[in-house]
Amino acid sequence: MTRTAETASFKFNHTMLRIRDPAASLPFYQNIIGMELLSEKKSDDFTLYFLAFNHEGKDLTKEEKEASRFAREGVLELTHNHGTESDPNFQGYSSGNSDPGRGFGHIAITVDDVEKACERFEQLGVQFKKKPSDGKMRHIAFILDPDGYWIEIVPSSFKL
Amino acid sequence: MTRTAETASFKFNHTMLRIRDPAASLPFYQNIIGMELLSEKKSDDFTLYFLAFNHEGKDLTKEEKEASRFAREGVLELTHNHGTESDPNFQGYSSGNSDPGRGFGHIAITVDDVEKACERFEQLGVQFKKKPSDGKMRHIAFILDPDGYWIEIVPSSFKL
Repeated sequence: MTRTAETASFKFNHTMLRIRDPAASLPFYQNIIGMELLSEKKSDDFTLYFLAFNHEGKDLTKEEKEASRFAREGVLELTHNHGTESDPNFQGYSSGNSDPGRGFGHIAITVDDVEKACERFEQLGVQFKKKPSDGKMRHIAFILDPDGYWIEIVPSSFKL
Repeated sequence: MTRTAETASFKFNHTMLRIRDPAASLPFYQNIIGMELLSEKKSDDFTLYFLAFNHEGKDLTKEEKEASRFAREGVLELTHNHGTESDPNFQGYSSGNSDPGRGFGHIAITVDDVEKACERFEQLGVQFKKKPSDGKMRHIAFILDPDGYWIEIVPSSFKL
């Protein structure tokens, strides 16, 4: 066990991705992926959105959402630099999966039933990088978020 | 509450980052950050390492680690494409924070005491992008992992 007193309080709280347009990304992560918006922080030049799955089995108050934002794991921070959504010269963000810009790969959502989840994604018009039926790995899929970031869809019971 | 039966099983399981050299990244994430290696999957061309903080307060068996890998949130997947660690022409991975390649921003670790955590990081020779004393936001820091990915160090009690 590598954990010592010095790191005992540490949590992997969030992953930050830049987004072009919150009007596309927020409905995607809320309605299609099913995350909840925990908080929204607007500055002059940018707005930060913090989202996470609600595993509490009950609605959270505004205060509980704020409190949970830095107290848990599995949070997604979306950064919107104001103006990109209407800038015709904006080139878009890199998914991290091709050069130049390779580095970050994907975020992954585990689900009970990949087939069923992917049927629903298809009905909702989600773009796929890899459908479960494509290629060799039939038990996983990759969908694309509105900026083209890859989201792996993996069964919770997955054994590599 | 945006959660419905269709997404009730979903978890934000992991974030994947490519690494140049596991001999640099594994000691960093295990000994300095304090994560535990849950599993390691070697293929011909690449190896995947899954790490996470152990919040169980006890050692986990190999089976428990494997089982937790896709059953929890807050997992970090590191992908090592074999050969990069010794390839003199390898250009390194993009942190996602400058063009070309901007997109992904950082992962964030919440800690009880940012000052204390950062003093320890300094003693251990960790590179800083922003020390707590730099700039305006004195309560947060950014350190760099061996590939140059940014890791935000935030207090668990943070209020934006």
